[in-house]
Amino acid sequence: MHRIDRLNELGFELPPPFPALGSYNVVTTAGDQVFVSGLGPLKDGQPVIGVVGDDMTLSDAQDAARMTMLLILASLEQSCGLDNIERCLRLTVYVRAEASFKAHPKVADGASDLLRDLFGPDRLPARSAIGVSSLPMGIPVEIDSIFARQGLTNR
Amino acid sequence: MHRIDRLNELGFELPPPFPALGSYNVVTTAGDQVFVSGLGPLKDGQPVIGVVGDDMTLSDAQDAARMTMLLILASLEQSCGLDNIERCLRLTVYVRAEASFKAHPKVADGASDLLRDLFGPDRLPARSAIGVSSLPMGIPVEIDSIFARQGLTNR
Amino acid sequence: MHRIDRLNELGFELPPPFPALGSYNVVTTAGDQVFVSGLGPLKDGQPVIGVVGDDMTLSDAQDAARMTMLLILASLEQSCGLDNIERCLRLTVYVRAEASFKAHPKVADGASDLLRDLFGPDRLPARSAIGVSSLPMGIPVEIDSIFARQGLTNR
Repeated sequence: MHRIDRLNELGFELPPPFPALGSYNVVTTAGDQVFVSGLGPLKDGQPVIGVVGDDMTLSDAQDAARMTMLLILASLEQSCGLDNIERCLRLTVYVRAEASFKAHPKVADGASDLLRDLFGPDRLPARSAIGVSSLPMGIPVEIDSIFARQGLTNR
Repeated sequence: MHRIDRLNELGFELPPPFPALGSYNVVTTAGDQVFVSGLGPLKDGQPVIGVVGDDMTLSDAQDAARMTMLLILASLEQSCGLDNIERCLRLTVYVRAEASFKAHPKVADGASDLLRDLFGPDRLPARSAIGVSSLPMGIPVEIDSIFARQGLTNR
Repeated sequence: MHRIDRLNELGFELPPPFPALGSYNVVTTAGDQVFVSGLGPLKDGQPVIGVVGDDMTLSDAQDAARMTMLLILASLEQSCGLDNIERCLRLTVYVRAEASFKAHPKVADGASDLLRDLFGPDRLPARSAIGVSSLPMGIPVEIDSIFARQGLTNR
């Protein structure tokens, strides 16, 4: 099944990809690794804003992480085609949170649950979840990631 | 000499590996690179908690970094076997510190000194040390890392 | 044209490389990927200090990012020779900023504009820009990076 069809089956639609906001590429490929720039949540083309644990709940933060992952997938579809992606290798999930926040992994699940459903539970990525004090435009979540193109793993 | 024996000779025992706290793998392998998820310090199976420069001293933070590295090594031993690991390529050490803290590299040495003693001074990794405002569960240090399996370097 | 000559043509001189401040390598190579440790801005061999949006302006922060990139390039020249580097694959730009700061991508442009001018606009890296609460020695910007040696891309 095409990855796009599987996403639709899961109830998701890819958003329009977002252009780079400066001198970088959203996606850069090197050999079999695909590096995706740090992206954040967009709603109707506008950045979602918030501080997790302050003016944003855990549930809303998970939604923001899921929206960010959909934007990552849209960027991959545009640059190399999702059907050419084998799996995600690593996710780094930065959460803009107030200082006492502790549930960063729950926020990150919003993004990686979608990867599990799309690529399968046997192809989960390595992951880091980090709390930071500020992010571009005031977004609550930023995710950078490395994916593998078909053919890398188990070679 | 087996890496485990060398660790014991250095006076260290590997802790039990810690399971993933969500939809990710602790260790993901791609080609010759091994990606390890962000891990933190455990003592008797419980997370160590603290803010470096506030309620945790530099020396305790170095211990926390060393405990984290032992957990990383335990995860590698479980997933692919430490004897199949050639070296660490990159460490990112996130330190949960109060805002005026400046000695992040000293904290990171707690982790990378152990790598030096285990893999040799000619196989040191690249390293970044960063100060952050919050981390999962309130841990003082989180480290993510990339290792090389035997055969990659100097190919 | 040699990369060093191109840099001079752009009006830049490489600073002296800075030694590692602990048990790590400034540059570690694995296969065709070159990992560079997190580096910061130096002026006359001394670290530049500041908090962006507080006691440091956006323009000064961009200069700090550019100085950091020159130090990265100097480290690459020393370790493997800039003419053997094909491109930058990924930049992570950590900005020590006050909590309401939002223009992290503009700071990061200070570093990646230099990469664009040196390697060409068709070889831009993936990039993440993150706001953090503290950095080693009080520097305002830290950048870690992965470069490709000649021969990797489009293979």
